[in-house]
Amino acid sequence: MAIPSGASTSIILRLEMNKETSSFAQVAAAVGDAGGDIVAIDVGRSDKTITVRDITVNVYDQKQTELIVEAVNAVNGVKVVHVSDQTFLLHIGGKIETTPKTPIKNRDDLSRVYTPGVARVCMAIHEKPSRAHSLTIKRNTIAVVSDGSAVLGLGNIGPEAAMPVMEGKAVLFKQFAGVDAFPICLNTQDTEEIIQIVKAIAPSFGGINLEDISSPRCFEIEQRLIEELDIPVFHDDQHGTAVVLLAGLLNAVKLVGKRMEDLKIVVCGIGAAGIACSKMLLAAGVTNIIGVDRAGAIVRGETYENRAWQWYAENTNPEGLSGSLSEVIRGADVFIGVSGPGVLKVTDLQQMAKDPIVFAMANPTPEISPEEAEPYVRVMATGRSDYPNQINNVLCFPGIFRGILDCRASRVTEEMKLAAAKAIASVVSDEELNEYYIIPSVFNASVVETVREAVIQAAYESGVARKAAPTSPKPVTVY
Amino acid sequence: MAIPSGASTSIILRLEMNKETSSFAQVAAAVGDAGGDIVAIDVGRSDKTITVRDITVNVYDQKQTELIVEAVNAVNGVKVVHVSDQTFLLHIGGKIETTPKTPIKNRDDLSRVYTPGVARVCMAIHEKPSRAHSLTIKRNTIAVVSDGSAVLGLGNIGPEAAMPVMEGKAVLFKQFAGVDAFPICLNTQDTEEIIQIVKAIAPSFGGINLEDISSPRCFEIEQRLIEELDIPVFHDDQHGTAVVLLAGLLNAVKLVGKRMEDLKIVVCGIGAAGIACSKMLLAAGVTNIIGVDRAGAIVRGETYENRAWQWYAENTNPEGLSGSLSEVIRGADVFIGVSGPGVLKVTDLQQMAKDPIVFAMANPTPEISPEEAEPYVRVMATGRSDYPNQINNVLCFPGIFRGILDCRASRVTEEMKLAAAKAIASVVSDEELNEYYIIPSVFNASVVETVREAVIQAAYESGVARKAAPTSPKPVTVY
Repeated sequence: MAIPSGASTSIILRLEMNKETSSFAQVAAAVGDAGGDIVAIDVGRSDKTITVRDITVNVYDQKQTELIVEAVNAVNGVKVVHVSDQTFLLHIGGKIETTPKTPIKNRDDLSRVYTPGVARVCMAIHEKPSRAHSLTIKRNTIAVVSDGSAVLGLGNIGPEAAMPVMEGKAVLFKQFAGVDAFPICLNTQDTEEIIQIVKAIAPSFGGINLEDISSPRCFEIEQRLIEELDIPVFHDDQHGTAVVLLAGLLNAVKLVGKRMEDLKIVVCGIGAAGIACSKMLLAAGVTNIIGVDRAGAIVRGETYENRAWQWYAENTNPEGLSGSLSEVIRGADVFIGVSGPGVLKVTDLQQMAKDPIVFAMANPTPEISPEEAEPYVRVMATGRSDYPNQINNVLCFPGIFRGILDCRASRVTEEMKLAAAKAIASVVSDEELNEYYIIPSVFNASVVETVREAVIQAAYESGVARKAAPTSPKPVTVY
Repeated sequence: MAIPSGASTSIILRLEMNKETSSFAQVAAAVGDAGGDIVAIDVGRSDKTITVRDITVNVYDQKQTELIVEAVNAVNGVKVVHVSDQTFLLHIGGKIETTPKTPIKNRDDLSRVYTPGVARVCMAIHEKPSRAHSLTIKRNTIAVVSDGSAVLGLGNIGPEAAMPVMEGKAVLFKQFAGVDAFPICLNTQDTEEIIQIVKAIAPSFGGINLEDISSPRCFEIEQRLIEELDIPVFHDDQHGTAVVLLAGLLNAVKLVGKRMEDLKIVVCGIGAAGIACSKMLLAAGVTNIIGVDRAGAIVRGETYENRAWQWYAENTNPEGLSGSLSEVIRGADVFIGVSGPGVLKVTDLQQMAKDPIVFAMANPTPEISPEEAEPYVRVMATGRSDYPNQINNVLCFPGIFRGILDCRASRVTEEMKLAAAKAIASVVSDEELNEYYIIPSVFNASVVETVREAVIQAAYESGVARKAAPTSPKPVTVY
């Protein structure tokens, strides 16, 4: 993967240098000849024969990095054992830290933060456990829980390798919504064990964000935890995607002047995200959804081993269409792709109804490239940041959890998700709305507050809010 | 419990006021008459009949607080539903937060912290899991794990009520040693389940601090986790206390001119702390230890149901002394109390050898009050901050975990604990050493660095350090 364009780039080469056979001058010359600019040198450990040095070098791009590494490796007695670019440097020691909200300045502070003063706070919670929601971090802290079984597009890479994603998520939660999120990556992929562990660690948290857990285990894990915990559990890969998709679709449909209940929608890729998107669409009033996976359309009346597919067959495809994507897409108003690269063809687009709406959300390579689709579609959205209309979960999860925590919701209802989708859509005004702007940018500052307010409102209407509704516009401290 | 002396005190009264029958003027008058000074008013929720108001009042002490609450409750139609003092206010929303180390300023930052850039970091760890120690928070983050079964002196108050203590510990870890610590309070007290859960969440952490888990379960939990995890596991209630005790004893013995191997030591209270202290003393060269619990001395040769006591009987009390504390304390050089208030009498002190050394560490009330003991002892230490020679774990756990993380130790060896004890003792110079100064203050800035260096050195000698020893005085970034 290339270094993201626009990034000013410095790299660090870790070298093992043989003291007899190599000199640093040779290394410096090699770096210089390759056009690199050495800006710092750190000596690591050193023994009789080997010195370890970290060389910081300014470079233009990934290509030059490779040239420099090659040149330095070519120096006799020198070995490049590691190369760090900006992205790796950013990750050294992790991306988040746990910090005190108020420092201990003296013995009085110590006696309040810790023993003996803390004892009274402990007993207050012991007498009334719900006080944990106000007197501990439970008030503003959620767990981002993964088993590393379906990380990004990378597959089952395990808990350690999943950490950078969960840490990144924690960074986004805090920066965009002030939510304290802590990454918990589990060294098990057993459904029952995961359920039991999340239940056991729940006392520390006010909510659970499930992340990158493979289908179909993710369905049972989420469902069981929702039933067995008194704090909200939200599988972002399902519902975050579904909420943001619906937000974009609401605006796209408004743009082309159609009505949700009249749409024929083909959903391609019936995994966790595809099923969640379809449920969200049904909740939003869509009636004619046809799901397509590798084996073709999921057909009402047929029976499927995959329990999720069985539910899907019973609740979608009212006309009982069967066959391949190219067959069922005839006359469709909307294509929603959460599958893989290149599955959608121009010939498919040509068969769609007037003003085709295409959400090609496969990452990093969409179901069809925007360039290819352009002439044949009215509205096009992808998961990518380098094209218009990016469908990005970051538009949903910070605001929805901000709202959940602020009204102390016991769960996330369908109404709250619908409210979040409508809130995101509403950030794009009718004046602004056009084919290339159906969904706000992830950096649009008003998204989180708009989502938060809609979610809190819906939570009270759903009867899941456990905190007295403030009359003042901003909630006052309630404890 | 009184508000700690020296604390400037403001309290917040939450009032429910009946709109018909009460007026705020009456409340203000009541507060004023009781000598309180209203400094702020916040209106909470409000409905047809009830208004909720938070009144912030400056007061002198706890006594006055009670007078004010009484006076306000006496106002017709007004009910005081909650009173918060400084300690409670400090706890609102918890005492720690999870913050990004580097903010996301633009799309390039986003693409490095999160997708797509993060994917390369994930794969680097997937290829070599040990990289998690440098590319994730594992490098500097530990879990403070409790099941709430033995919290402070409060007993089995459960996981929610234990959180303020664990959060306080996290504050101390960060402020004193820069260690990121996150509190995990478990909603189970089943030994096997706790072991399984801590193993499952270990990928996120570089170490585990077990806290406030009742005896004897704490022994098996710690032992099993040490064997089954590749990161250090340290039960602070056992080893932190033992390390600091030994530090104090080393200096006390130096002061009275005796030798460890000649000492007769009576340990009173053979729970988790008492057993750990005794093991530490044996490791430090003491041979003649007599353990005493409610039933009297634990006698070599006898058999005990409690497996920990059986081990104790086989490894202490070489002369096979039996009987009560008063009987076995005859001629003892040192008394170590980790039991309860008032178990040690002046008549016991009078039977001890010359220059009695007494560590009365029961909290909050020692085995004998320093005032009472003063005339009969040479050196006296307690667990309290309001007397000289406070034996406080805060002297140990920040520095020992700082060292553990900096050399990436796989476990905590006996040598490392001994090194930590000697390091703490060494902070008090021979010139400074006297009866009222055998142990440094918890605010002594040099303690953590001294302990850290000693622990790292011992870790390399024990062969448990997994990070190349830096040649430079301060370790350079190793990744």
